Amino acid sequence: MNYPNNINKSYKKFVTYNNRGMDLENSINEANEYYLENNLALIYKKPTPIGIVKVSYENNSKVIDKAYFKEPSTLDYNGIYKGKYIEFEAKETTNKTSFPLRNIHPHQIKHISKVLEHGGIVFIIIKINQLDYLLDGKDFLDYIENNQRNSITYDYIKEKGFVINYKFNKGLDYLSILDKKYFS
Amino acid sequence: MNYPNNINKSYKKFVTYNNRGMDLENSINEANEYYLENNLALIYKKPTPIGIVKVSYENNSKVIDKAYFKEPSTLDYNGIYKGKYIEFEAKETTNKTSFPLRNIHPHQIKHISKVLEHGGIVFIIIKINQLDYLLDGKDFLDYIENNQRNSITYDYIKEKGFVINYKFNKGLDYLSILDKKYFS
Repeated sequence: MNYPNNINKSYKKFVTYNNRGMDLENSINEANEYYLENNLALIYKKPTPIGIVKVSYENNSKVIDKAYFKEPSTLDYNGIYKGKYIEFEAKETTNKTSFPLRNIHPHQIKHISKVLEHGGIVFIIIKINQLDYLLDGKDFLDYIENNQRNSITYDYIKEKGFVINYKFNKGLDYLSILDKKYFS
Repeated sequence: MNYPNNINKSYKKFVTYNNRGMDLENSINEANEYYLENNLALIYKKPTPIGIVKVSYENNSKVIDKAYFKEPSTLDYNGIYKGKYIEFEAKETTNKTSFPLRNIHPHQIKHISKVLEHGGIVFIIIKINQLDYLLDGKDFLDYIENNQRNSITYDYIKEKGFVINYKFNKGLDYLSILDKKYFS
């Protein structure tokens, strides 16, 4: 596991405990709001793509009466940090030994490779065994290319990933990892 | 009006004629698909933000039975080009002398200023009088700050904006304008 500088393991355990029960999406949204309010980064969750089948009007405003969910071809979050394009996906698994690849659609895998080609920063946040790991898009693709498994082993995630700390009032503070991995 | 280099006016008229009747969103989607297929840029339209009120299950898949449209706080399109973060909005008006500012929500105006602060490229594509103009976010904000009007005059759009050409099989080719304005 790559520990970013100065990580105090007992602190990490403490914050992990605090974070227990808060779902991954909420803790990322909390971070994004903190970053927005403090003008550190602009990262938004994309709305879920839907196909609208039927609309009607109620009090002069359009209402959706029927729609279905579409499969996303990009990742859930994107935005800008220190002038760089950022995009990522966040997934949690209850598996203890591996992260099942069915969590990421084939279109999204292609997309990750395209973002890298165009010079963007792309990664996956994987919540596994009560810890939140940031796994770089390149490491993610390397694993897929070199393994026939349909899941990424927890050992690989520990080896290549960075543990992200949940911080009180800041949420899941992934920018501190980006600073270490991409901006130092 | 800032004509990009080598624009042949008769060609411009020709392509504008071809584009007549095709709506702005389709001509931008066509360009984005062309850019994606040719690996020039990764730009996607964000799904419309919705609030889901009620879902049900049909044949094991989740279906939306009731939802409403939310007001967007970011712009419609974003992505990456030559390593840079790109975001824009596209609007058309049937007004001939000005572009009504009610087309852009107050949250979006704030957002434009934030994208600029964080070093992104941000602009508005305005279709007015059968022409598609790219107006830089900074020029857009400058106008709002220095004018009390609730619309941007066509004269200002012509002065500061760049006419984007519709090209056969390429759609509304705004990257060629970005090359001239931001990458030359």
